[in-house]
Amino acid sequence: MSDLRKLLRAEPGGTRLADIDPRSTPGLPGRRVVGDDRKGWSATEVAAASEALGGYQERLFASAKEGATRQRVLLVLQAMDCGGKDGTVRNVTQGMSPAGMKAVGFGPPTAEERRHDFLWRIARALPAPGYVGVFNRSHYEDVLVARVHNLVSEDVWSGRYEQINAFEAEQAADGLTMVKVMLHISRDEQKKRLLARLDDPGKHWKYNPGDLAERARWDDYQQAYEDALNRCSTDAAPWYVVPADRKWYRNWAVATLLRDTFADLDPQYPEPDFDVAAERAKLLAAG
Amino acid sequence: MSDLRKLLRAEPGGTRLADIDPRSTPGLPGRRVVGDDRKGWSATEVAAASEALGGYQERLFASAKEGATRQRVLLVLQAMDCGGKDGTVRNVTQGMSPAGMKAVGFGPPTAEERRHDFLWRIARALPAPGYVGVFNRSHYEDVLVARVHNLVSEDVWSGRYEQINAFEAEQAADGLTMVKVMLHISRDEQKKRLLARLDDPGKHWKYNPGDLAERARWDDYQQAYEDALNRCSTDAAPWYVVPADRKWYRNWAVATLLRDTFADLDPQYPEPDFDVAAERAKLLAAG
Repeated sequence: MSDLRKLLRAEPGGTRLADIDPRSTPGLPGRRVVGDDRKGWSATEVAAASEALGGYQERLFASAKEGATRQRVLLVLQAMDCGGKDGTVRNVTQGMSPAGMKAVGFGPPTAEERRHDFLWRIARALPAPGYVGVFNRSHYEDVLVARVHNLVSEDVWSGRYEQINAFEAEQAADGLTMVKVMLHISRDEQKKRLLARLDDPGKHWKYNPGDLAERARWDDYQQAYEDALNRCSTDAAPWYVVPADRKWYRNWAVATLLRDTFADLDPQYPEPDFDVAAERAKLLAAG
Repeated sequence: MSDLRKLLRAEPGGTRLADIDPRSTPGLPGRRVVGDDRKGWSATEVAAASEALGGYQERLFASAKEGATRQRVLLVLQAMDCGGKDGTVRNVTQGMSPAGMKAVGFGPPTAEERRHDFLWRIARALPAPGYVGVFNRSHYEDVLVARVHNLVSEDVWSGRYEQINAFEAEQAADGLTMVKVMLHISRDEQKKRLLARLDDPGKHWKYNPGDLAERARWDDYQQAYEDALNRCSTDAAPWYVVPADRKWYRNWAVATLLRDTFADLDPQYPEPDFDVAAERAKLLAAG
């Protein structure tokens, strides 16, 4: 496991968000490597990491082609409003192909989704073998917003942590590699970004008056996040907390977590199930 | 309509593939613009066009957010084997976000799909309002491979052109803007690319021994493509023929067709449905 994964991984029972500075940059190489232009360095590194991810993605896709493996990878992003989920997705996937990707955003459940168990829509949205999935929000909303707003009773939401762990363990055993990332921003940074949304007509569509009511429950959300991190960071599906006040660090960290995860997975092109030399001869003979 | 769209558009009844040189570069700016490094020029232009597409994509997504419009865009790619569909997708989407995109590849229909009309799986795969869809193969396979291999009787496949036109007109009326592109390669270029796949272990997974049997029916396929182009290039859903032996031209042409189509569509950020100044004051007051 790379140092960054060790550094950012949420330790079950031992993670306190208040102890993690959203402006910190754990694992960042020293100034001799990064230089003075940290944003520029990050942009170059993220582009390179994403190119590497594109290569891994192709090998993953190829390896699953004939049903030979059920391997698939899922990036789960959770954050407070303005945490940077959309920007992270755009940056880390720049070198990957949409053809082998399934990006899904989860809003409030629809009427049909509410008629089912909370994991029903999640299971349907998982990437198929060979694919890379990206979840913008996820089943964790069902122990975050559902808990903070008492959408269900405590009996119900408190039982969900174990249900989530069982579900994720089952998926992991079936070939799913999950990288769950909480983008950790400060209350001040959220304020700055909400103001920026209000001050830019091109960002008004991202603003929702309900965002202020959510912001008023900041501490409740932090507590709910902390419990989710502490109860659902497992070996089968670890949680990482990425300090996210600095976008350039956030992009670098998420791209690095993904790249290192893929490097361990190390998907391989399948062996051909045909005689290469014979095919070559046939092609040349036929003209 | 830009010159390129006029130049590449398949004219109903008047398109003859044999008259279109797959190595030609219609609409390419002159040497004074392009310079001597045409590949380098194309890479820069395609990256810039794709960045612009990313901006249009965001505005399209924003405009459809509250159900205000049903606009959505679909790129349909068809080609002979090795025609470059995957590479085209990767290149033209590099500046777009997978979050607002739905890329679907169509293989031989599954058992479930075969129990339905040939357009059933297509309708289910269309992009939702605000999304950009990419089809790698499409319902046109049902008048291509299905016709060449007599998978259905002539009565059946010959009726499909009108069914396709009716379906596409209905979708267009419902907000779907289609850009249908045939990547037109030569028989010689296909041979070169098949050889390249056989000679590179990293490309073996893309090779299928059945490709040679398909190649043997080259003329039948060209005829089937020509009929599809001539019968299904409509104002509601035009076909474009992109000469594709030169990958750098192909990427530039498809990116340009898409960008010009989006420029006509010109999606706009929605007006805010809240009082911006009041929200700003509330945010500042709440701290």
